[in-house]
Amino acid sequence: MIIVLNSGAGEAQIGSLTTFLEGRGLDIHISRGVEHTVVGCIGAVDEDKQNLAEQLNALPYVDRVVIISKPYKMVGRAFAPEGSQVQVKDVCIGGGQLVVMAGPCTIENEQMLRDTAVAVQSAGANVLRGGAFKPSTSPYSFHGLGQAGLKMLAQVGKELNMPVITEVMDTRDVEMVSQYSDILQIGTRNMTNFALLQEVGRTGKPVVLERGWASLIEEWLLAAEYIALRGNFQIILCERGVRSFETYTRNIFDISALIAARQLSHLPVIADPSHATGRANMVTPLSMAAVAAGADGLLVEVHPSPETALNDGAQSLSFKAFEQMLQKLAPVATAVGRSLKASS
Amino acid sequence: MIIVLNSGAGEAQIGSLTTFLEGRGLDIHISRGVEHTVVGCIGAVDEDKQNLAEQLNALPYVDRVVIISKPYKMVGRAFAPEGSQVQVKDVCIGGGQLVVMAGPCTIENEQMLRDTAVAVQSAGANVLRGGAFKPSTSPYSFHGLGQAGLKMLAQVGKELNMPVITEVMDTRDVEMVSQYSDILQIGTRNMTNFALLQEVGRTGKPVVLERGWASLIEEWLLAAEYIALRGNFQIILCERGVRSFETYTRNIFDISALIAARQLSHLPVIADPSHATGRANMVTPLSMAAVAAGADGLLVEVHPSPETALNDGAQSLSFKAFEQMLQKLAPVATAVGRSLKASS
Amino acid sequence: MIIVLNSGAGEAQIGSLTTFLEGRGLDIHISRGVEHTVVGCIGAVDEDKQNLAEQLNALPYVDRVVIISKPYKMVGRAFAPEGSQVQVKDVCIGGGQLVVMAGPCTIENEQMLRDTAVAVQSAGANVLRGGAFKPSTSPYSFHGLGQAGLKMLAQVGKELNMPVITEVMDTRDVEMVSQYSDILQIGTRNMTNFALLQEVGRTGKPVVLERGWASLIEEWLLAAEYIALRGNFQIILCERGVRSFETYTRNIFDISALIAARQLSHLPVIADPSHATGRANMVTPLSMAAVAAGADGLLVEVHPSPETALNDGAQSLSFKAFEQMLQKLAPVATAVGRSLKASS
Amino acid sequence: MIIVLNSGAGEAQIGSLTTFLEGRGLDIHISRGVEHTVVGCIGAVDEDKQNLAEQLNALPYVDRVVIISKPYKMVGRAFAPEGSQVQVKDVCIGGGQLVVMAGPCTIENEQMLRDTAVAVQSAGANVLRGGAFKPSTSPYSFHGLGQAGLKMLAQVGKELNMPVITEVMDTRDVEMVSQYSDILQIGTRNMTNFALLQEVGRTGKPVVLERGWASLIEEWLLAAEYIALRGNFQIILCERGVRSFETYTRNIFDISALIAARQLSHLPVIADPSHATGRANMVTPLSMAAVAAGADGLLVEVHPSPETALNDGAQSLSFKAFEQMLQKLAPVATAVGRSLKASS
Repeated sequence: MIIVLNSGAGEAQIGSLTTFLEGRGLDIHISRGVEHTVVGCIGAVDEDKQNLAEQLNALPYVDRVVIISKPYKMVGRAFAPEGSQVQVKDVCIGGGQLVVMAGPCTIENEQMLRDTAVAVQSAGANVLRGGAFKPSTSPYSFHGLGQAGLKMLAQVGKELNMPVITEVMDTRDVEMVSQYSDILQIGTRNMTNFALLQEVGRTGKPVVLERGWASLIEEWLLAAEYIALRGNFQIILCERGVRSFETYTRNIFDISALIAARQLSHLPVIADPSHATGRANMVTPLSMAAVAAGADGLLVEVHPSPETALNDGAQSLSFKAFEQMLQKLAPVATAVGRSLKASS
Repeated sequence: MIIVLNSGAGEAQIGSLTTFLEGRGLDIHISRGVEHTVVGCIGAVDEDKQNLAEQLNALPYVDRVVIISKPYKMVGRAFAPEGSQVQVKDVCIGGGQLVVMAGPCTIENEQMLRDTAVAVQSAGANVLRGGAFKPSTSPYSFHGLGQAGLKMLAQVGKELNMPVITEVMDTRDVEMVSQYSDILQIGTRNMTNFALLQEVGRTGKPVVLERGWASLIEEWLLAAEYIALRGNFQIILCERGVRSFETYTRNIFDISALIAARQLSHLPVIADPSHATGRANMVTPLSMAAVAAGADGLLVEVHPSPETALNDGAQSLSFKAFEQMLQKLAPVATAVGRSLKASS
Repeated sequence: MIIVLNSGAGEAQIGSLTTFLEGRGLDIHISRGVEHTVVGCIGAVDEDKQNLAEQLNALPYVDRVVIISKPYKMVGRAFAPEGSQVQVKDVCIGGGQLVVMAGPCTIENEQMLRDTAVAVQSAGANVLRGGAFKPSTSPYSFHGLGQAGLKMLAQVGKELNMPVITEVMDTRDVEMVSQYSDILQIGTRNMTNFALLQEVGRTGKPVVLERGWASLIEEWLLAAEYIALRGNFQIILCERGVRSFETYTRNIFDISALIAARQLSHLPVIADPSHATGRANMVTPLSMAAVAAGADGLLVEVHPSPETALNDGAQSLSFKAFEQMLQKLAPVATAVGRSLKASS
Repeated sequence: MIIVLNSGAGEAQIGSLTTFLEGRGLDIHISRGVEHTVVGCIGAVDEDKQNLAEQLNALPYVDRVVIISKPYKMVGRAFAPEGSQVQVKDVCIGGGQLVVMAGPCTIENEQMLRDTAVAVQSAGANVLRGGAFKPSTSPYSFHGLGQAGLKMLAQVGKELNMPVITEVMDTRDVEMVSQYSDILQIGTRNMTNFALLQEVGRTGKPVVLERGWASLIEEWLLAAEYIALRGNFQIILCERGVRSFETYTRNIFDISALIAARQLSHLPVIADPSHATGRANMVTPLSMAAVAAGADGLLVEVHPSPETALNDGAQSLSFKAFEQMLQKLAPVATAVGRSLKASS
């Protein structure tokens, strides 16, 4: 940790700071510059660094405090330099084969879910997604079928031998949702719902952790650290776009963050091209870009008839469009040394 | 609702759209422009508008859909054109007297809380704030004393006859926190935690709803609508800064949003100048600006010795700085026809 | 154009608006909704739409005005549905072969420029870049060699038979820079310098137009329209990242904007992965993503010894890293039906 | 300057870095931490710091470089701790009396300019604004009367004995515009047009420098430094809102930046509430907030009939609204120890 003093700080203040820091058992190095004195400070344990920095920042003679080491530990690349994989039944996420999670944004009924599952599996998807609890900006929108939807999801997944993923939004629902779903999804709106992060951490279930729409890469990794600290390392990061001044696309897909997450962390990283843009005709080129950049997989919305979808129709692919997308994606996957599951 | 068709849309498609919309019981007006045909559509009930717009957006011959009416109803200004007030014990929020909620970011022990409460009450604060459950980006930071902190807060509030406010973060804690606190605070990280919004809506307790750090004004009002729909109209909006490219201040305080919220909604609106900037020496001018712009009150961090605060020390005011701030604030309040509680 | 009236607007106001609009020679359609009356308005010529919308927005009984048609014409996809190409000597930009523009951010001397040119040409680049006038946030930074640098650039380009590109920043320099450079580059800081846009429009020279770091896609295309309106259609769009709350990367590379620009416009679109991230170790995966998404080429910083570069060293590739990047890029290009120039 | 090395950096690399830095005449202090070695480096002259930092950042064993001192000098608060004033004829900007610059966004003809000037002067404005060269996103919009407009502006200013301000956008126009206008305005779109900054720096004329809509506070001050380095210290900073994800207001007015600019710089700072929001009904409360926060003045759009304004009508005040605004502003000015010019 480095403490930069104000240009007006005198020897009395430097002495007082030294006494304070040494009293905390820290080693001190002082550099007196032309304008600023800088105090280097070695030995603070990780748990204390944030708090100590806040205290020091409040001192009137301190200009700023720079923390040198990364604030996350267990999800950092150094923890598992070769990268980690998450195994869900037959599917390995983070290996040579890309994972393609596909299905409807919202489960409307069992028939549409089954039809979609059959179609996406046939085209080459290896995980079935489907929303039963839907976050929605408006309280007047449809919010999903709840537990009834979860039962449909588990049933269809079992029939087709596909692992399933669904979102959980309330700490009180985590145990129940875990009974039906192979993977728990934390949506962008709940990335900073720390109670929920800790609760899914306790389950030991694989978790897809979406980045908050205005969260720093570092905050995203710290959210993963919350889960890992409860003993659950089965974490998959998901970049799904961030907010910006641009209005043509719903969000800006932060391809640099996807690349950075793979460099900074050992966790697998997937992309959600559907929410990133909100436009079906951008999903295919965006998916190709994400795979070329190193994504370990995709989370894609597919619907039997997007034009009548209850939610997010504008960004859902039809069965045919999804199939065509995977066909275009295959050579890109090959170009970066990855593969897609064969279509059947 | 207005539906703008692609320039290539032909009569067959216009006919098909007309049939679809009339089948939903809607009135249709068609305008054929040089480039685009525009379909006006009257009669959709509120609950359906978002879903209908999504479906229409997914049609290949639709360019875009414009929803005309505001998506929120009960918190909109038209619902109570004169503005509404929230009464908490002796304190009326939204009236002629500004509400000043002050206290430590985090309750560290009963003594520091009592000292702070005495100091802020004496300077002119009328509500005591104090954190018992603290959201923190890092899992390694201090997260508050929990229920023990709540007991201290309730005790000190009772002794001094001050209403108290504290944050709640987990649906499972809402009932318990409600037993100790007069006002429930929903923090910026949980503005889109819809399960939590609904749970505080069920309590009927006054709620301070912070704007999400990258949430639209409209989304903020819809979050309030979630609470109101559960029958709880005791809602106070709180602007606390949004994220941006700027790094000098922690956030950008969106003074325009504060003004807009008062124009668009009937709810009282307060400002949190401490989190907005993260710098103690900006709290006073920012508070003066907020009051001049029409804020109904402030939520301010005060600490006995900011330089040793466990959390957010850099943005906390000392007792003396807080007192001086209220002295500077008083003439600004007068200038806009408001008053501060007399200091004792 | 659609005019949404306030819910309080009455028949007198509708009549007054109708008179005003019909007096401008426009056709009117009125739809009376439950809450709002909506006036459709057909026939305004393009030049008047923005002004007319501003006037209408100022009327007290108008809620908002929605312009239906796209504000740009000559650079829109409809103007040349098959897409357009820009030919610079032997190099065709926007065709099957990707264009790779590479070289130093700043020309330091003729030797380093020649060394770099030889290296990048050998690796497969087909255009030489080099800065002679450098925009820099700080007035204390190095700003380039000026005309002396341009002479070196022209000389080396001629020797190696490579077209050259360099940035121009001042209307007074456009004619002079045009004498030395095959392509004129408008940097992100000057995308809204309309005098400069018009001046390069008058030259007829190929122009690379970088997107402003906080400019809408629509504003970017309108900046291109400024150039095209002076008779110069030799325009290449360049996405180079936008500003955001994220601090780990210098900018967020807006891959969705690159995709959107190709859908909305007929102009070729290239990517600058060096400025987008400011980190050399992200340039290769970002380039692969851009090509997979459909980019027509790349603008890359290469330097003989990045660790001693006068400007932007942190984001420059070494000769070896550039060569390796093109090797990784080749199969991705093939996967999307494009090719790279053969390395020699 | 502080250089943080990667955790893998060994003694050979530390030695090599030391040799390099000492060869540049710098003093070195080395701190070996548990994870990272940190090298403090004293003595670099200002002109070299940015370049040196870039070079060091490019070294493979460097994690990051932290520059300790502020990059601007002449506009920094330390240069003139009491604050500086700009005198324009009888008007002192930065003193006890607020400066109110008001007038039409665009000069349409001499009559409307004179009517507006008479009205705003009578209400209490002390500088007349009027646009003759108008930047506009669309090439199809009205761009102002040019030199003819400047003549009207100079004429009306002379008649009423009011200093005048107008925007200049092209280096080639600076000399000509200087003949007519007392103050030169650099618009938000040209804050990073460094050629223009230097050209207005050479004139010695007072300059209003608007912040770029996505420029850091530090970049804004560096833009001012560009002007000051040419010998012109007659600079007035103007905050006019920044871009964000919010769509209800055109921009977010960054009140914290206004406060920060006054703390970090000695230059006067004014606010433009008209462009900040794009909504006439927000101009008054925003102006009150800016003055309460310490602004030295306002730049406001006023128009004889906003509903027929050629540009920016939606954000212009009518004569009556402007007069009412100043009446509301007066007590706020008094509350912060400032005054308004008496209305006549």
